[in-house]
Amino acid sequence: MTTAELELTTASTATQRTSVTMKALVYHGPGKCTWEDKPRPVIQDPGDAIVRLTTSTICGTDLHILKGDLPSVTDGRILGHEGIGVVEHVGMGVSEFHIGDKVIISCVTACLKCDFCRKGMYSHCRHGGWILGNTLDGTQAEYVRIPHADGSLYNFPAGGDEEAMVMLSDILPTGFECGVLNGQVKPGDTVAIVGAGPVGLAVLLTAQFYSPAAIFMIDLDEKRLAVAKQFGATALINSADGHAVHKVMELTEGAGVDVAIEGLPATFDICQAMVAAGGRIANVGVHGKPVQLQLEKLWDRNISLTTRLVDTVSTPMLLKVVRSGKLQPSKLVTHRFAINDIMKAYDTFANAAKHGALKVVLTNGAPR
Amino acid sequence: MTTAELELTTASTATQRTSVTMKALVYHGPGKCTWEDKPRPVIQDPGDAIVRLTTSTICGTDLHILKGDLPSVTDGRILGHEGIGVVEHVGMGVSEFHIGDKVIISCVTACLKCDFCRKGMYSHCRHGGWILGNTLDGTQAEYVRIPHADGSLYNFPAGGDEEAMVMLSDILPTGFECGVLNGQVKPGDTVAIVGAGPVGLAVLLTAQFYSPAAIFMIDLDEKRLAVAKQFGATALINSADGHAVHKVMELTEGAGVDVAIEGLPATFDICQAMVAAGGRIANVGVHGKPVQLQLEKLWDRNISLTTRLVDTVSTPMLLKVVRSGKLQPSKLVTHRFAINDIMKAYDTFANAAKHGALKVVLTNGAPR
Amino acid sequence: MTTAELELTTASTATQRTSVTMKALVYHGPGKCTWEDKPRPVIQDPGDAIVRLTTSTICGTDLHILKGDLPSVTDGRILGHEGIGVVEHVGMGVSEFHIGDKVIISCVTACLKCDFCRKGMYSHCRHGGWILGNTLDGTQAEYVRIPHADGSLYNFPAGGDEEAMVMLSDILPTGFECGVLNGQVKPGDTVAIVGAGPVGLAVLLTAQFYSPAAIFMIDLDEKRLAVAKQFGATALINSADGHAVHKVMELTEGAGVDVAIEGLPATFDICQAMVAAGGRIANVGVHGKPVQLQLEKLWDRNISLTTRLVDTVSTPMLLKVVRSGKLQPSKLVTHRFAINDIMKAYDTFANAAKHGALKVVLTNGAPR
Amino acid sequence: MTTAELELTTASTATQRTSVTMKALVYHGPGKCTWEDKPRPVIQDPGDAIVRLTTSTICGTDLHILKGDLPSVTDGRILGHEGIGVVEHVGMGVSEFHIGDKVIISCVTACLKCDFCRKGMYSHCRHGGWILGNTLDGTQAEYVRIPHADGSLYNFPAGGDEEAMVMLSDILPTGFECGVLNGQVKPGDTVAIVGAGPVGLAVLLTAQFYSPAAIFMIDLDEKRLAVAKQFGATALINSADGHAVHKVMELTEGAGVDVAIEGLPATFDICQAMVAAGGRIANVGVHGKPVQLQLEKLWDRNISLTTRLVDTVSTPMLLKVVRSGKLQPSKLVTHRFAINDIMKAYDTFANAAKHGALKVVLTNGAPR
Repeated sequence: MTTAELELTTASTATQRTSVTMKALVYHGPGKCTWEDKPRPVIQDPGDAIVRLTTSTICGTDLHILKGDLPSVTDGRILGHEGIGVVEHVGMGVSEFHIGDKVIISCVTACLKCDFCRKGMYSHCRHGGWILGNTLDGTQAEYVRIPHADGSLYNFPAGGDEEAMVMLSDILPTGFECGVLNGQVKPGDTVAIVGAGPVGLAVLLTAQFYSPAAIFMIDLDEKRLAVAKQFGATALINSADGHAVHKVMELTEGAGVDVAIEGLPATFDICQAMVAAGGRIANVGVHGKPVQLQLEKLWDRNISLTTRLVDTVSTPMLLKVVRSGKLQPSKLVTHRFAINDIMKAYDTFANAAKHGALKVVLTNGAPR
Repeated sequence: MTTAELELTTASTATQRTSVTMKALVYHGPGKCTWEDKPRPVIQDPGDAIVRLTTSTICGTDLHILKGDLPSVTDGRILGHEGIGVVEHVGMGVSEFHIGDKVIISCVTACLKCDFCRKGMYSHCRHGGWILGNTLDGTQAEYVRIPHADGSLYNFPAGGDEEAMVMLSDILPTGFECGVLNGQVKPGDTVAIVGAGPVGLAVLLTAQFYSPAAIFMIDLDEKRLAVAKQFGATALINSADGHAVHKVMELTEGAGVDVAIEGLPATFDICQAMVAAGGRIANVGVHGKPVQLQLEKLWDRNISLTTRLVDTVSTPMLLKVVRSGKLQPSKLVTHRFAINDIMKAYDTFANAAKHGALKVVLTNGAPR
Repeated sequence: MTTAELELTTASTATQRTSVTMKALVYHGPGKCTWEDKPRPVIQDPGDAIVRLTTSTICGTDLHILKGDLPSVTDGRILGHEGIGVVEHVGMGVSEFHIGDKVIISCVTACLKCDFCRKGMYSHCRHGGWILGNTLDGTQAEYVRIPHADGSLYNFPAGGDEEAMVMLSDILPTGFECGVLNGQVKPGDTVAIVGAGPVGLAVLLTAQFYSPAAIFMIDLDEKRLAVAKQFGATALINSADGHAVHKVMELTEGAGVDVAIEGLPATFDICQAMVAAGGRIANVGVHGKPVQLQLEKLWDRNISLTTRLVDTVSTPMLLKVVRSGKLQPSKLVTHRFAINDIMKAYDTFANAAKHGALKVVLTNGAPR
Repeated sequence: MTTAELELTTASTATQRTSVTMKALVYHGPGKCTWEDKPRPVIQDPGDAIVRLTTSTICGTDLHILKGDLPSVTDGRILGHEGIGVVEHVGMGVSEFHIGDKVIISCVTACLKCDFCRKGMYSHCRHGGWILGNTLDGTQAEYVRIPHADGSLYNFPAGGDEEAMVMLSDILPTGFECGVLNGQVKPGDTVAIVGAGPVGLAVLLTAQFYSPAAIFMIDLDEKRLAVAKQFGATALINSADGHAVHKVMELTEGAGVDVAIEGLPATFDICQAMVAAGGRIANVGVHGKPVQLQLEKLWDRNISLTTRLVDTVSTPMLLKVVRSGKLQPSKLVTHRFAINDIMKAYDTFANAAKHGALKVVLTNGAPR
């Protein structure tokens, strides 16, 4: 880039700064959020990109935020950390994306340069991590500013389906990295997934990359269990009667499971009770308080227990598998709304059991 | 075991030693083998088992032996290293198998005690390795003596199909260990398999355990390529025109493949020409002479090249996957013969292209 | 082995059965054990060996047993699971050891044949595991019967030192496998070891196989910390003031340690408080009750927590390293007693702080 | 960064562009290079940094370039890809380094953003790789432009020694990654290093991170072998008599070595002849023509052969180990010259045997 070009870009950045507005879902304290006017974001740092959203979705974490569970999210924040869109502006330091590129936005922002990013732990990036819809304005809007765009966006594949691809923003890498990779699922393994919500189902879909011999899905909701059956679970266990562990032990002839994937805090006890000697417990859920670990039973069982915030390092690989047709994430989508109806979408998602909802997709109209 | 029992077993061993005969396929030098009478094998060591065969098969290596390519195989040797059968006698040191157990015979004999076995390299077992039908009498017979039975037999699963299970003696672990494991096939990878014979097809079937995004099958024979298509190959390349490498480069947009699995010595050059930077070449074929390695092209490409004689350490896992229904090895069987027709079976297998033959299964009748 | 030989061995076994006595340390309920006459052990199974002990030692677990903490140990049991000796008899199924061989006895008995042994999890061997001095008579005696001898004994290296080698029975593989391997210590890592007792020091010695940049040793006892300094610890932290975590954070500029190795139940809290994001907590201690796991702090920290009963699969490697001179385990020995003075030895070991005792070695005299 | 700041930086970049000269070693075709005036480099891209060199060194590759072996190096190129210096200017996209920072320059330039960098294969970076002193002007000069500075520079540690640290530019990561990591050196292993030149000695130093039981150094030069002895080799083999393989087999009781590290094309045959079953051959040397691979001997030996251009992904770890004092790379430095005497330094290095030279360090004086 020559000096002349540098100046040109700077000029264009300046022009872009004229204040125009957009619609966005703004958090105003526990229980309150509105679809309202906000200024369109502008380039602030050389690594930034501005993306016009075409598709987004709602995450279970967004519901926690709305309840006020995350103090890092403050009044005035635009919510959302998942989305598909088109690049409208890029800073001078962005080299991998250009205006007009269609992109998948990763829920985790990665500078790629810090010690954590260099180790593949983007979740702990010293300049990023999970910040969208958390400490920075997010994707449930018409436009979003993506810092460190080169590490935080992925090219949308030609011919791809936006509904499928938006699952790559968060839910698929989360299920895969925190559940399947950390659980070290191997061919022939017996796997139990506790919780058949969207993330549990993402675990179920991606666990099959490694051809386990059996996958037990455990949940309280018969409808979700029925979905799990269609998605490849080999046995369904309704834990409502409190006998899930007993049933797992019967199915495994007393051995327990090689991998227990824990999707909800309440299921931690089930997981530690049913893991086989030599097995792995992979924590996927978000925990708000301590749990009791039965080390008096587990100390000599050669088990491992892992925690992880999704790093999204697997996104390039997941993209390849989705493109190959071996993974069809659009199966997770049950409801669709125009972005202007986002309040209805939240209502549907917040009452998932009633509506049989898994993932709820939001479609943005043409830019104003 | 009490002293009394020890004596009893010794006595029974003695009784068993009365010489009775059986039929077996005996090698008599290059090009000569006959289905003839031989003494039934007896227990010679405490770790031995005598197995009455119910199903066996013929390996490409058996054809090499018949041509006289393997000097370790001498006149009088009973051929064959694959089979299913029923345990008829066990030595005093055998603890895992009992008379009447139906078993899968591994092509590799493992003492489990030596340094190589302790490292999982059964192929280099100091007291075993590939000896059946090589330096010891083999399985193309009515009975076979299996040394180190506890490490060399596997329980036949209840409800299993003998035709499917006999593929676990050799061809499936060979394809899986030498090709797939050594090639480190991962989800999203692009894999090329050169050679669509039985072992190449076993690679194809087991590579899918890890959900590669693309599998190219390369062969000269259109019929075998058509089979590969049914077995899951995503692209077929007939290399008859000498442009296989060019086609692979087109399919991979110039990158080459992540994993090149070499099933025939003649294909080594193709493999090194089409492996991507960071890729793996996994040798599966048996080589009789040196090859030229293009280190001037590969030294800075971060590739690995592996060789391996099958260890059969993956057999327990493969058994689990076959039982789960995710792998259906009986697809490899194209022809069936009664054991008494073994000469016809060899003729069919030796002229595989003409007969469209892959694996040829031999069924033993009831014991005499 | 011919039938004649089989009979001979049987005869010899019979002869060997004449009841002769030996001295042994026998447990008679909590707080009670005596050095008394017991019948010498005899071959009971084909895989057995009888070993005449020349050196043994006392483990912290033996003290727990004496207190009555392990219900599996019943009245009349000979204690001890560590030792060096000479093979006096072998069963017919033993192939790797012969009469007169000098051997190291592993604390874990491994059949090598079961599914757990095949996976390298000897600790969970279906026919063995930790049974010596637990559910079977042990090594604090003049003779001991070792079941599955081929998997449970190791050749004593020519020119070896018995005091050094007896550390290979338990303490070195325990520290190495449960602490160092499970903790995945890597070059450049920062490691904290909590507890400078014999096992903690074994962790310290074997962690250095992987060249961590820093090893912090944490203990309450200044004498043990001083030993740790000599053994290679790069920083010593006396946790008596309750500020161990604070000091670790200072030393690591707030990052915490890559690996926290927990040697005592009481130190579990310290470990989880000082592990870095992406780090590992390796449990080494024996736990009698549950602990509280701060999942609300750890769920998004990408940590792993492991438990393990020593498998002794690393013993062949440890032997090589000891022979190379890179590991000098005799440094762990502080006190020596004749076996007849075993009661004094227990007293010294039980009051380790007072006596500055680490490992206490027992030397057997010539056989009677 | 605000728009105002952006403009400021642009202005400063413009100012910096006034043409001033520096001294540099310039290649003018085979056999010709001169220490001559060249324009000082300036920022060309937002990711660039300009570094004023304080220390540099000469690599064996530089000698190859001088001979005309590398067609990618053309007339007018400044040589050199190793160095320590101080950052004088940074582009707007550089976030990790600032003016005045003392830095280690990596021989490999990494954008950190492309698919290869994301996989840790910086050597194949789509925008970098080994370009310094190759396709771009290098470090044997007073100033150098470093593209993608955030991925290609490392902070010089406080209190570090420039002579030691300049070994981190190339030779230490090359020996470690291509030799030790690819060779998978493990505790207890037997390792042979063929070639005791600077890179071979870097392999020797870094192999000891993993505590192999034995390291054999093989070379023709007794002086270099003597150095290897001081650096930790456990056996020295002078291969002048053509019996190196025989000696290795004697030392390993016929087994061969677990890891054979090949530092020179001429030694490839030795490596394949002495690798044990299950062993690894790690190629480190630069090859100009094909080699013969004895697949007829190796096909069933379960070996792996690897190639690699150094990625420098291990540099952060190596820095930690150097800082901990466990690795003292300044031992590799035998000769020191002022940068103005670079022609003498080349002469010494090119006649290494005569001068007993290993690494030759060049010290730059104060900036003009």
